[in-house]
Amino acid sequence: MTAAAPAPFTAADYAARMARATEAASDAGLDGVLVAPGPDLVWLTGYRPVETERLTLLVLRAGRDPALVVPTLEAPDAAKSAGAPALTLHDWTDGTDPYTAAAPLVGPAGRFGISDNGWALHLLGLMERLPGTRYTALSDALPMLRAVKDAAELDRLAAAGAAADAAFEEIRRVAFAGRRESEVAADLAGLLRRFGHEQVDFTIVASGPNGADPHHEADDRVIRQGDTVVLDFGGLKDGYGSDTSRTVHVGEPDDEERAVHDVVRAAQEAGFAAVRPGAACQDVDRAARAVVDDAGYGAYFIHRTGHGIGVTTHEPPYMVEGETRPLVPGMCFSVEPGIYLPGRFGVRIEDIVTVTEDGGRRLNNTSREMVIVG
Amino acid sequence: MTAAAPAPFTAADYAARMARATEAASDAGLDGVLVAPGPDLVWLTGYRPVETERLTLLVLRAGRDPALVVPTLEAPDAAKSAGAPALTLHDWTDGTDPYTAAAPLVGPAGRFGISDNGWALHLLGLMERLPGTRYTALSDALPMLRAVKDAAELDRLAAAGAAADAAFEEIRRVAFAGRRESEVAADLAGLLRRFGHEQVDFTIVASGPNGADPHHEADDRVIRQGDTVVLDFGGLKDGYGSDTSRTVHVGEPDDEERAVHDVVRAAQEAGFAAVRPGAACQDVDRAARAVVDDAGYGAYFIHRTGHGIGVTTHEPPYMVEGETRPLVPGMCFSVEPGIYLPGRFGVRIEDIVTVTEDGGRRLNNTSREMVIVG
Repeated sequence: MTAAAPAPFTAADYAARMARATEAASDAGLDGVLVAPGPDLVWLTGYRPVETERLTLLVLRAGRDPALVVPTLEAPDAAKSAGAPALTLHDWTDGTDPYTAAAPLVGPAGRFGISDNGWALHLLGLMERLPGTRYTALSDALPMLRAVKDAAELDRLAAAGAAADAAFEEIRRVAFAGRRESEVAADLAGLLRRFGHEQVDFTIVASGPNGADPHHEADDRVIRQGDTVVLDFGGLKDGYGSDTSRTVHVGEPDDEERAVHDVVRAAQEAGFAAVRPGAACQDVDRAARAVVDDAGYGAYFIHRTGHGIGVTTHEPPYMVEGETRPLVPGMCFSVEPGIYLPGRFGVRIEDIVTVTEDGGRRLNNTSREMVIVG
Repeated sequence: MTAAAPAPFTAADYAARMARATEAASDAGLDGVLVAPGPDLVWLTGYRPVETERLTLLVLRAGRDPALVVPTLEAPDAAKSAGAPALTLHDWTDGTDPYTAAAPLVGPAGRFGISDNGWALHLLGLMERLPGTRYTALSDALPMLRAVKDAAELDRLAAAGAAADAAFEEIRRVAFAGRRESEVAADLAGLLRRFGHEQVDFTIVASGPNGADPHHEADDRVIRQGDTVVLDFGGLKDGYGSDTSRTVHVGEPDDEERAVHDVVRAAQEAGFAAVRPGAACQDVDRAARAVVDDAGYGAYFIHRTGHGIGVTTHEPPYMVEGETRPLVPGMCFSVEPGIYLPGRFGVRIEDIVTVTEDGGRRLNNTSREMVIVG
């Protein structure tokens, strides 16, 4: 059903990423980077521990070997990760203080970027132990660290997008009318897995008035003839994310439903057309939003136009007003304008787009027409 | 297959929990509590948003109504949560600064407890906006906030434990020899779901030498005749956790395997016997560890004896050396000593135990003998 898995990233790949992060930190005036379990750690080392109250922390500092602070009982797993050959492990045992173990690696002063999703518990533990050290969230300090994808990453994102597209081509053929949103969502999750996703992150099926809530997931509402239905789904395939939205209609839409869909489609097209190297992230948002504003629906487009995607389905760069950093070839992000009419229905259309030298390239390519379902 | 779901917690239940947290904060000399998405927020409000870079923050302060800072696009979901009637929602829109929205609710000074798992991104955002405010991790500031369960919570934990036990009674009858760990793990996940779990958190199947790694999950290793196999599994049923471990053997164990299992079983029994109101948490650890030490295996018991359980499967109280707080009736936690012989095998036996007026009561009740599997 699915193509062979891509060659795994090697210890050398991870070592190169860690070196790149360390260098980027120096360039940004930081002494190093503190990495918590989650997407940063996966990207830098391939290690994917469960996030818990036990401290796991990768410390990257210029001129030193990457060091991983890890609970003793998890050290064997850490040692098996693909990036481990480039790491020295520093384990600590239950009942001892993990921040004491980490402190000499971080040092008593200096400025560090720290993973956005690092736990407050651990940051406060470090702050107490090392009161002279300063911390900045990585999305502020090094927002573009993971944003520009290399060829191997782009291949995976393209494959994840193609798998999500394949799932859409199947889901548009299932019965909608008379079934609960949660049943269609379960179908979607099964399709994502069938087309190679190892992890399903979200399967939004938002019918009728539920579609007016952008983050509605799926509930017991029975989908009816005449409903507009927002589908927004994605997850991870071979470690990289998919995320696409299409809005379908059960039977023929009325004039307003069609008109709103046309506006969103034009907005998505305008956002896509604004993608080119050197444009600001906010330009993509502005281009899409202008179309919605001009059509009189501006008050109903209540979120930013897009977010980056990589080893996680939400990461910088964000296509949002105020984000003036430039687009760079290799960046990948969603372009997903929407219109949400409270109590009535919603429409969203979303593709993942990557920046090329010439403009944008879509990683989702199913029809952006309003698909009629049964 | 499963009993009817328990009556959901009501707005009044959640309001009472929020009031209790606010009062506990005052008693601890804090001005309030800052609650991030995750188990604290679920327990206090019933609201379970996806954790993302967008700030969601519950602010509890004495003399004020509970306030929930929430992204505009998620406000409809927040408003539907069971605890919402007791909350005022303060939404912020993409492209604006969420910490500016939160600042007047938190105030420019004071001391707050903050959820352990709150993101560093958000804590640093608050710190920058409110440099005069001080923060302490909730597990340091109010470690026992969620630790003492009420009757409705105990019922759920008992039901989750019974469901995990039912899963064990089935899994001990499946084929082990010749199958991959990952296949048995998939069976376990299916059984947990079949017996009413809506979420499976872990399904450890650690055979032969993999058993010597306490946090080994399950991999492609084919289980063989003669293997010792650690099973450790759990998740959430009706919102409350299960977590139990049993160590089985494929065919007859040899003398050493049996001896090590006997030591762990005696240690688990000793830990359980130490559970009574007023004992220190560390006494449970010491009681279990003494048995392992006396048998000469102390160096191979490389983790604490237990952790609390409730709306999450890892939370205070921790049964660990240095945790001198007393056990209180209604607390629920694991008692799970283990012995891990590197390169050879491991044994762990784990029950969830609740503190009663008279001592401990086990919420897992399958055989603690070494079960022989095929």
